[in-house]
Amino acid sequence: MAPGKKGIIERLNAGEVVIGDGGFVFALEKRGYVKAGPWTPEASVTHPEAVRQLHREFLRAGSNVMQTFTFYASDDKLENRGQNLRLSGVQINEAACDLAREVASEGDAMVAGGVCQTPSYLSCKSEIEVKAIFKKQLEVFMKKNVDFLIAEYFEHVEEAEWAVQVLKTSGKPVAASLCIGPEGDMHGVSPGECAVRLVKAGAQIVGVNCHFDPMTCVKTVKMMKEGVEKAGLKAHYMVQPLAYHTPDCNCQGFIDLPEFPFALEPRILTRWDMHTYARVAYKAGIRFIGGCCGFEPYHIRAIAEELSIERGIMPPASEKHGMWGAGLEMHTKPWVRARARRDYWEHLSPASGRPTCPSMSTPEGWGVTKGHADLLQHKEATSTQEMKHVLEMQKKAKSSA
Amino acid sequence: MAPGKKGIIERLNAGEVVIGDGGFVFALEKRGYVKAGPWTPEASVTHPEAVRQLHREFLRAGSNVMQTFTFYASDDKLENRGQNLRLSGVQINEAACDLAREVASEGDAMVAGGVCQTPSYLSCKSEIEVKAIFKKQLEVFMKKNVDFLIAEYFEHVEEAEWAVQVLKTSGKPVAASLCIGPEGDMHGVSPGECAVRLVKAGAQIVGVNCHFDPMTCVKTVKMMKEGVEKAGLKAHYMVQPLAYHTPDCNCQGFIDLPEFPFALEPRILTRWDMHTYARVAYKAGIRFIGGCCGFEPYHIRAIAEELSIERGIMPPASEKHGMWGAGLEMHTKPWVRARARRDYWEHLSPASGRPTCPSMSTPEGWGVTKGHADLLQHKEATSTQEMKHVLEMQKKAKSSA
Amino acid sequence: MAPGKKGIIERLNAGEVVIGDGGFVFALEKRGYVKAGPWTPEASVTHPEAVRQLHREFLRAGSNVMQTFTFYASDDKLENRGQNLRLSGVQINEAACDLAREVASEGDAMVAGGVCQTPSYLSCKSEIEVKAIFKKQLEVFMKKNVDFLIAEYFEHVEEAEWAVQVLKTSGKPVAASLCIGPEGDMHGVSPGECAVRLVKAGAQIVGVNCHFDPMTCVKTVKMMKEGVEKAGLKAHYMVQPLAYHTPDCNCQGFIDLPEFPFALEPRILTRWDMHTYARVAYKAGIRFIGGCCGFEPYHIRAIAEELSIERGIMPPASEKHGMWGAGLEMHTKPWVRARARRDYWEHLSPASGRPTCPSMSTPEGWGVTKGHADLLQHKEATSTQEMKHVLEMQKKAKSSA
Amino acid sequence: MAPGKKGIIERLNAGEVVIGDGGFVFALEKRGYVKAGPWTPEASVTHPEAVRQLHREFLRAGSNVMQTFTFYASDDKLENRGQNLRLSGVQINEAACDLAREVASEGDAMVAGGVCQTPSYLSCKSEIEVKAIFKKQLEVFMKKNVDFLIAEYFEHVEEAEWAVQVLKTSGKPVAASLCIGPEGDMHGVSPGECAVRLVKAGAQIVGVNCHFDPMTCVKTVKMMKEGVEKAGLKAHYMVQPLAYHTPDCNCQGFIDLPEFPFALEPRILTRWDMHTYARVAYKAGIRFIGGCCGFEPYHIRAIAEELSIERGIMPPASEKHGMWGAGLEMHTKPWVRARARRDYWEHLSPASGRPTCPSMSTPEGWGVTKGHADLLQHKEATSTQEMKHVLEMQKKAKSSA
Repeated sequence: MAPGKKGIIERLNAGEVVIGDGGFVFALEKRGYVKAGPWTPEASVTHPEAVRQLHREFLRAGSNVMQTFTFYASDDKLENRGQNLRLSGVQINEAACDLAREVASEGDAMVAGGVCQTPSYLSCKSEIEVKAIFKKQLEVFMKKNVDFLIAEYFEHVEEAEWAVQVLKTSGKPVAASLCIGPEGDMHGVSPGECAVRLVKAGAQIVGVNCHFDPMTCVKTVKMMKEGVEKAGLKAHYMVQPLAYHTPDCNCQGFIDLPEFPFALEPRILTRWDMHTYARVAYKAGIRFIGGCCGFEPYHIRAIAEELSIERGIMPPASEKHGMWGAGLEMHTKPWVRARARRDYWEHLSPASGRPTCPSMSTPEGWGVTKGHADLLQHKEATSTQEMKHVLEMQKKAKSSA
Repeated sequence: MAPGKKGIIERLNAGEVVIGDGGFVFALEKRGYVKAGPWTPEASVTHPEAVRQLHREFLRAGSNVMQTFTFYASDDKLENRGQNLRLSGVQINEAACDLAREVASEGDAMVAGGVCQTPSYLSCKSEIEVKAIFKKQLEVFMKKNVDFLIAEYFEHVEEAEWAVQVLKTSGKPVAASLCIGPEGDMHGVSPGECAVRLVKAGAQIVGVNCHFDPMTCVKTVKMMKEGVEKAGLKAHYMVQPLAYHTPDCNCQGFIDLPEFPFALEPRILTRWDMHTYARVAYKAGIRFIGGCCGFEPYHIRAIAEELSIERGIMPPASEKHGMWGAGLEMHTKPWVRARARRDYWEHLSPASGRPTCPSMSTPEGWGVTKGHADLLQHKEATSTQEMKHVLEMQKKAKSSA
Repeated sequence: MAPGKKGIIERLNAGEVVIGDGGFVFALEKRGYVKAGPWTPEASVTHPEAVRQLHREFLRAGSNVMQTFTFYASDDKLENRGQNLRLSGVQINEAACDLAREVASEGDAMVAGGVCQTPSYLSCKSEIEVKAIFKKQLEVFMKKNVDFLIAEYFEHVEEAEWAVQVLKTSGKPVAASLCIGPEGDMHGVSPGECAVRLVKAGAQIVGVNCHFDPMTCVKTVKMMKEGVEKAGLKAHYMVQPLAYHTPDCNCQGFIDLPEFPFALEPRILTRWDMHTYARVAYKAGIRFIGGCCGFEPYHIRAIAEELSIERGIMPPASEKHGMWGAGLEMHTKPWVRARARRDYWEHLSPASGRPTCPSMSTPEGWGVTKGHADLLQHKEATSTQEMKHVLEMQKKAKSSA
Repeated sequence: MAPGKKGIIERLNAGEVVIGDGGFVFALEKRGYVKAGPWTPEASVTHPEAVRQLHREFLRAGSNVMQTFTFYASDDKLENRGQNLRLSGVQINEAACDLAREVASEGDAMVAGGVCQTPSYLSCKSEIEVKAIFKKQLEVFMKKNVDFLIAEYFEHVEEAEWAVQVLKTSGKPVAASLCIGPEGDMHGVSPGECAVRLVKAGAQIVGVNCHFDPMTCVKTVKMMKEGVEKAGLKAHYMVQPLAYHTPDCNCQGFIDLPEFPFALEPRILTRWDMHTYARVAYKAGIRFIGGCCGFEPYHIRAIAEELSIERGIMPPASEKHGMWGAGLEMHTKPWVRARARRDYWEHLSPASGRPTCPSMSTPEGWGVTKGHADLLQHKEATSTQEMKHVLEMQKKAKSSA
């Protein structure tokens, strides 16, 4: 880290709010550099200017963490997804580190090297094999000397523990973030229990990212915090939710919504929703607050603006944004000028402009909630059965390994 | 223009589809480089990398037109909006031309210099004074040798005529685009009549941009086309609508929706909506098809993909996009893989995830539609009266000038 | 008429508001006495207590008109619809007159004998044949000495003219009411032109009933009034709309909505919607104000309450209804007591409780509006073609007759 | 009971489905005979024809239970609500019994005498005083020899126990029904525990009525059944829910929805919703299936039609109703005829016709759910505090009594 910059743990120990960045995969998909489906991050090598620009926008929006754009950049995933370039995982991970460091050094930001869940785990490879995957990425992060490490986007706490154990060997601070909701991980381990296991595995920061909207994620992290405190342990907390409203999700989150991933637009949070999110997360005692899929730079700026008093600083991009719509004071029409106030935006219920569309969907996939939808539709949750069967087989495969 | 490249009129005369770009002002506001309210484009000077990157993304998405980022860059607007930098209009306009040219030369795109409505006209300055404003911008466009000119975003056809007359003196092709809907301009001149006047003033391409959703804009351009044909005239047609659903607009478009400009998220069109838009515009005989506020690169790509057979080409960014969701064939979950088909996305009615929000709003401002909302609410449309009074005064001021 | 009671024309000439009744067919369908599909009114014979009770409830709610329950009681319809009882049209029409008279004499109400459109007309029978149908019903009305006559629920103004001409021979006042909207009758005759033709045929009161919501119906009657006044004629006006919100209808009204007739519940107007309706109808100069399908007694009471000052009287059923929710002052919970005020109910936007349902539908059938729905869906309006063909054939059949 | 008729327990022991009736208070409010707010049932004396007719409609729709119209007919409530007639509780209760018996004897129905929660309990009167209230009503039921007794609409299980203990002294079968949801009674006693206490108090049938929509009520009765079975006890089960969709309720049900009681229309269940309800209730092992507020005769008929195979009988009113819309086969328009099938109605998502209204509301009052609404709105639940304080005071008052 650059001399004079504080590390993640120093900041959190001092009670500071650390602002995360937004979602690279979804933002770059819309900009034309990531393919939905495989979701792999080869753009760091092929279009570095696009990745650099997005980092800069988040930095400018107030982000203190430049996460290396290494989502799904493990060797097994890159192969599995058949990217037809002959780029090695090392190349991609190194390029991502360089870009994150370049931009981080332009402002008050740290570089976080990130690993996430692997196809190896899902196909029941052994602990040794899965850990080898994480080690390979870690070697790049050590060579490039990132400031801390994040194991994020894990649906199974067991795999996250393995990742933490590997990352921990580096001596660098380790954060662990699952993509689960209040119902817990895919084997039904509760958020509290998950958090305890991650802390015991060595994570200093625990939380959730992706899969659910901000309120659901904050609720889940609160359950984690309660679990950790009940167990007499200590941790810092992080949250990096979706920028999509998902009141109709089942336990696997937005993946199972019929709109995933190409028709989520009507669910996108406004900047004002982000103010509420930032306040609620702060009140819950969470101090590492960022975003995941759907978060654009202006969403991060809204978090930074909401917490500007607590942090004693406004983000650079606020030079182009009047707090609570103040910029509208310069609008031509008087009735638009009248919208230049907090009260107006806080109480607005924005219309969808889609009168033939509903406001909630019924999720597909396994784990459909046992609520009204289910009862009303007399549906056989066949895919649930199928998936449970797969999980059982995985379990057996492992125990007999 | 680079040797070997065809001009806009050549292309349109040959029956080619010309794809426009998306909305710089709104896209850069979200990225942190434009301030909502003043909406001025000084970023070309202060953050050229951000403007260049957005141009590149549109080029990559299939755009054939790089519009100079000179919206609201007339001297009277820049002063009026009090941008505190001491940047001159000339500086901003020149920087914008350079960026557009730089990126245009990286692909099959032309540079279009753009002017739009002025505070001078709205405050009843004389024809001479208003034309002087346009002339000053035109001088930059001539010096930088743009490929053609667009007079766009005019609410009053009279001002657009003046702009066309000025731009016409350059000898370059001139397009004219109003921000009106089927009810016509702010003085009630019908779309057909507006188009006839613009063609007579010298525009070779006429159409509309901004203020309304794609279907409303296409409908309006169809009315223009009918007017022009009825008058025995000839023209090419263009359309660059909002990427927001606006079924609840009055005659002044999305400005008067309560959600403008900071809570429009639930109205954002999906890529599939864009396929429909592109097809409908094409069927209506429109051949210059692009976007305005709300259009992100992936929206433009959807237009290019829908018309790829007619155009005989796929855009570069489609290397990162399976047609009709084909990329999902590589997704982990079987029920998500099942979404990798056209039929699925064409028939989906996406939920808003906002059960406490309505699907339509009641517009504010003058010109509220005389429909149900009005009748139901017993509201005195005071602002209408006020605005009509202002317009009357303007008229008188002009006629006595 | 009972001595001392004023007739319909006397009342209207004196500027009084005459309150109509609600929809018997739909109300009795829900109570179990009318079959949806055939919609025939044999219950007057088979279950007179049910018909009498509904008359009484409307009388109690403030209705001044007891319409004989003779909808679809023409001989050709009764046969056509295959009611398996061997009840003759005469029996049904007579029983209906007796029930209406019995209840009318319990309060300040007149009896109106009603005829409506016939299968004979739709199957291209001659004017003589169609008129013979109406004459047969009229004979019963004359024998039973009803107070005035209504020709209602006609989709084609021509058939309504024939009905008026027949009814006119009685010497009793005649009202004529079409089931059309602002787009006019099924042959495209405008509301204004329809009204002029009906007045010329002899109707003293003209208007519309059924098929559209109150606001649309009032709008249509306003167009009728303008037509009549422009033609230098004179008439009184009536309106008896649906109690369903139908913003998404095409020219044939609620029949073409996918929810017709068994899933219209979410569209039912509240009593507060009825206050608005009554006020708007009154302001439009309409003085015979009632309801059609969906109107329950409390809807009629709301009209009577809204116009109680103008009429100088409250309806009997208001002994069981506090104006604007005043009865809630006696509720147990304080927050429900707080709802006992006009302002609360006037500004409430009631939720549907159905988050997976849309707020608007796309109508089926012919005559689909040429708006967004159409453009978006690339649908071939096959049934439109089919129906137009049928109409053409009918025309030819007639002209060659 | 008439000779040859089976009693309620005989029927349930034999595994028969017993169909309840619908909601008199709400239905008669709309017909003009009950005042919202006080909700008292004096109409049995003042307008017996209206009450008799509603009984008949439910009988015709398939109902096997004629509940005496004695809701809120306890002496303390009648006084408290200040009905200005000088009708005694005895008069009203007797008249109600006579009407129920008269109609029950016209078909296959039993008469059930009903008591419900009292103001005396809510104002902390002693057990002796509260029981005296119930005894007075019971005396009438014994004199009039009703077939069985129902203690229904209790928010506090303790008061319901007292009611059961009183009714039990009669020797007649006793059913007990709370107006609670899955969160339990107003003191937080769970549904399972409530049911156990009611069975121990002597109820042979237990369940819930009112306050929540069918799915929520069925879910609650399932919890009751689990509780009873876990405790090694035995009972029959009943459910009589609202005919309103209430997905947005808190623990006190529809009372706290902003739409209660005058703007619930958009929430009314269709007949097809009732088919689902009947099936789900049946599958859950509930055999006494009826309705409460909002249920009209056609809703009850839908239950009877859905379970017609299990019961071996169709209700009389089905002579006027084609199963699954079959009557539409006789409709004039071909596209409406195409709706005469089960599949069509089962899959329809009916639109509200209200594009400016939301699909869910935020409940008022105490006990607001601790979910998203709460977090998002930073609201102080003041009324919650207030109500909790009241409950505390009541508790103390009782314990010190």
